[in-house]
Amino acid sequence: MSKNLTKREEDYSKWYNELVVKADLAENSGVRGCMVIKPYGYAIWEKMQAELDRMFKETGHSNAYFPLFVPKSMFEAEEKNAEGFAKECAIVTHYRLKNDETRPGKLIVDPNAKLEEELIVRPTSEAIIWSTYKGWVQSYRDLPLLINQWANVVRWEMRTRLFLRTAEFLWQEGHTAHATKAEAIEESEKMMNVYADFAENFMAIPVIKGLKTETERFAGAEETYCIEALMQDGKALQAGTSHFLGQNFAKAFDVKYANQEGKQEYVWGTSWGVSTRLMGALVMTHSDDNGLVLPPNLAPIQVVIVPIFKTDDEFEKISEVVNGLMAQFKKLNISIRYDNRTTQKPGFKFAEWELKGVPVRIAVGPKDLENGTFEVARRDTLTKEVVSKEEIVTYVSDLLDTIQKDLFQKAIDYRTAHITEVNSFEEFKDVLENKGGFISAHWDGTPETEEKIKYLTKATIRCIPLDRVEEDGKCIFSGAKSTGRVLFAKAY
Amino acid sequence: MSKNLTKREEDYSKWYNELVVKADLAENSGVRGCMVIKPYGYAIWEKMQAELDRMFKETGHSNAYFPLFVPKSMFEAEEKNAEGFAKECAIVTHYRLKNDETRPGKLIVDPNAKLEEELIVRPTSEAIIWSTYKGWVQSYRDLPLLINQWANVVRWEMRTRLFLRTAEFLWQEGHTAHATKAEAIEESEKMMNVYADFAENFMAIPVIKGLKTETERFAGAEETYCIEALMQDGKALQAGTSHFLGQNFAKAFDVKYANQEGKQEYVWGTSWGVSTRLMGALVMTHSDDNGLVLPPNLAPIQVVIVPIFKTDDEFEKISEVVNGLMAQFKKLNISIRYDNRTTQKPGFKFAEWELKGVPVRIAVGPKDLENGTFEVARRDTLTKEVVSKEEIVTYVSDLLDTIQKDLFQKAIDYRTAHITEVNSFEEFKDVLENKGGFISAHWDGTPETEEKIKYLTKATIRCIPLDRVEEDGKCIFSGAKSTGRVLFAKAY
Repeated sequence: MSKNLTKREEDYSKWYNELVVKADLAENSGVRGCMVIKPYGYAIWEKMQAELDRMFKETGHSNAYFPLFVPKSMFEAEEKNAEGFAKECAIVTHYRLKNDETRPGKLIVDPNAKLEEELIVRPTSEAIIWSTYKGWVQSYRDLPLLINQWANVVRWEMRTRLFLRTAEFLWQEGHTAHATKAEAIEESEKMMNVYADFAENFMAIPVIKGLKTETERFAGAEETYCIEALMQDGKALQAGTSHFLGQNFAKAFDVKYANQEGKQEYVWGTSWGVSTRLMGALVMTHSDDNGLVLPPNLAPIQVVIVPIFKTDDEFEKISEVVNGLMAQFKKLNISIRYDNRTTQKPGFKFAEWELKGVPVRIAVGPKDLENGTFEVARRDTLTKEVVSKEEIVTYVSDLLDTIQKDLFQKAIDYRTAHITEVNSFEEFKDVLENKGGFISAHWDGTPETEEKIKYLTKATIRCIPLDRVEEDGKCIFSGAKSTGRVLFAKAY
Repeated sequence: MSKNLTKREEDYSKWYNELVVKADLAENSGVRGCMVIKPYGYAIWEKMQAELDRMFKETGHSNAYFPLFVPKSMFEAEEKNAEGFAKECAIVTHYRLKNDETRPGKLIVDPNAKLEEELIVRPTSEAIIWSTYKGWVQSYRDLPLLINQWANVVRWEMRTRLFLRTAEFLWQEGHTAHATKAEAIEESEKMMNVYADFAENFMAIPVIKGLKTETERFAGAEETYCIEALMQDGKALQAGTSHFLGQNFAKAFDVKYANQEGKQEYVWGTSWGVSTRLMGALVMTHSDDNGLVLPPNLAPIQVVIVPIFKTDDEFEKISEVVNGLMAQFKKLNISIRYDNRTTQKPGFKFAEWELKGVPVRIAVGPKDLENGTFEVARRDTLTKEVVSKEEIVTYVSDLLDTIQKDLFQKAIDYRTAHITEVNSFEEFKDVLENKGGFISAHWDGTPETEEKIKYLTKATIRCIPLDRVEEDGKCIFSGAKSTGRVLFAKAY
């Protein structure tokens, strides 16, 4: 297996694209901007889905499914939301093809099969869902509605990149309706926290929780909570958002309930989502020049065993020992694969599993059988240990926990080293250009300043951190008064 | 809870539509032909998905994800397949909306954002997947490819019915590629058997395995295997299909591999799928005039406990006992709900859970506490038993198994009573009109006769059963020679 992976230092972006394809995560398809998620990549996404789905259900949510299409009149009902997505949506206008009389075997759109009303392929489902909620909510007893959907959505992005920005992507979108404003805000914050827990405990990615500025807010929301992560190239990545929608969609779709006094009131809404974009974050946070590095909690294969042998007899004896070991690991719910292919040499296998980011590799040869030992290699540190057969199961089981923690700590350390406080625009530009990462700076709170800084530097305000300290200061750009710092960065 | 469910005898079709909506399975949406799958219905679908997914993985398949859109030129590559789906597909022609200058707040399709090539919303994914497989297959070592996808698909049906026929539906589609014809046929048969196992052991629906006639075959397949079920109104329902695709798609998309001698050969393909249509089959096989009847293996709630009380003190004492009981059931992985709502009376709760098809209901009141007993009611038979607290857990656990088996047996008995052998066209018409069910008859093997019978009676050949007996006979319609019987029925 020849890797020929571009090094991160040479060209981070190229390294990422190559790695995603070579590690069998995804590839571009024959459809502009749409990707194929390959089995190995999809297996990681399935592990993410399973954990998130469990967390959503534990917080009281149920799954449901709403239509892929949104009729144009429904799409435009919430004006800000419509405006936000109108410029990048796929539109169905016809429902039939017919034979092209002039070119046998070819088809053309049948002009007689034009839809009366165009259908938008959902870029997000607030419109279709709130038009449904109108029929589901009559009284306070019907609230809260706590619903999630796993679905595909389409946004007609012009410049796409595997996982990070694709015309079609997979995601989950939670849509809830509540009797009170306080409850809806609580829900938005709760789901932001669920996302943060997931990112940190499963993806081993530290995140900063914060609020988006008005400019960066979701179209149709009153407030957008987000979790922001930092990639190894110093660019930020928005890993999840949770929106407090106020009564905007309730008013657009006339969703009212009778409160306990029998008075009609509009309900309060939230929506929240994470997508296959998380796959990009996972790759970019941990991986290295040798390939993927996967946190054990999300690795489809946590441990791989490679036999080293010359003769059939050796192979047989090794396989016997390995089969016994496999059974012990499986009892502990450790996902393990015995790479017993006879078509490939050990060196090829080592490189392949390194590229694919399997956290722990066990090698075993005739010498090991004699000594009663195994060679255990860590993918993250590329270090090896010899471990006795008596200790191997406990050792590897503990090692998986250690790797999970170490990856998280390493990412925290990197991030800590890449949050820089600056107090002037000169300093801001200098850090942005020469170091990257999050820049903590005072800002005057106006969209105008935000826009100018973005225009001049390409840096955006990633969030107003929830835990920021009240602190009097002056905006690095305008010099106007500020009461606390915000985080800027260049971002994916 | 007022049910007011139309009786099956009065109007089976109306009964079905009402039941699906009233039991909170699904409802029509504001989008023509598309349904909303409500949380309770989706929970059943999730249980189906989980079992099927496990079965697919146990038979060596991996999940992946391919694009929603198929460019027209790719869509038309396999001509028969294209022809089969061209008349009912949703077509994306534009990628942007813009403000309607004449009507503020309204949007129109931007004529400047016309796609160079139209995109078909996948009605099935052979085209997009085989165009991808071309890049994945070089040598025999890359085969077999055993891949499944969980996805939404769109077929522009003119007359739709919840679950049974909707413009958008959810399904899984397996797509495999093999080195030899024999292997591909084996795969098609294997997956038909997986579907049959699932239908019988989880859905409690007996199915007949067979082959479709040429007329009823999937567009682009060489052979279509199917499982056919019988609904309570005597109509058949195709519950799953598995197609042997020959080399049709391999040739259309130029998917070749180098065999062990280094010679280039086309690969052999299969595809197979089941959809949310199974939800319709589930409802129509077991439910009755009181509502849903769910087989325990797919019921989101297997047991519901309803407390009967007048005072807070009674409620408290009952709840204490119930909580202890719940813990014991949960240990056995029995899905149980304690309906401790104080806003509804027991009678309302009984009717609601009956409507929703919860297999077992336990009621407990002050008298039961005194006697150390519970009242256990079966949803399928509507019978009740008094069970002591010592026996309750074992009793209910066994009862769930019994109900699962009884539902299956009841469905088998119904089907056995509704397979009728006929030997003349007069008899055929008589049985079809007065009894319904499967009609086993001799057919001359020609599409012409098949077509005429369909035209005259609306009955179609559901399948040529795999286990049919060789038997000389005469076609009931043409009198021509036949070597075995096929199964006719009116069908969903």
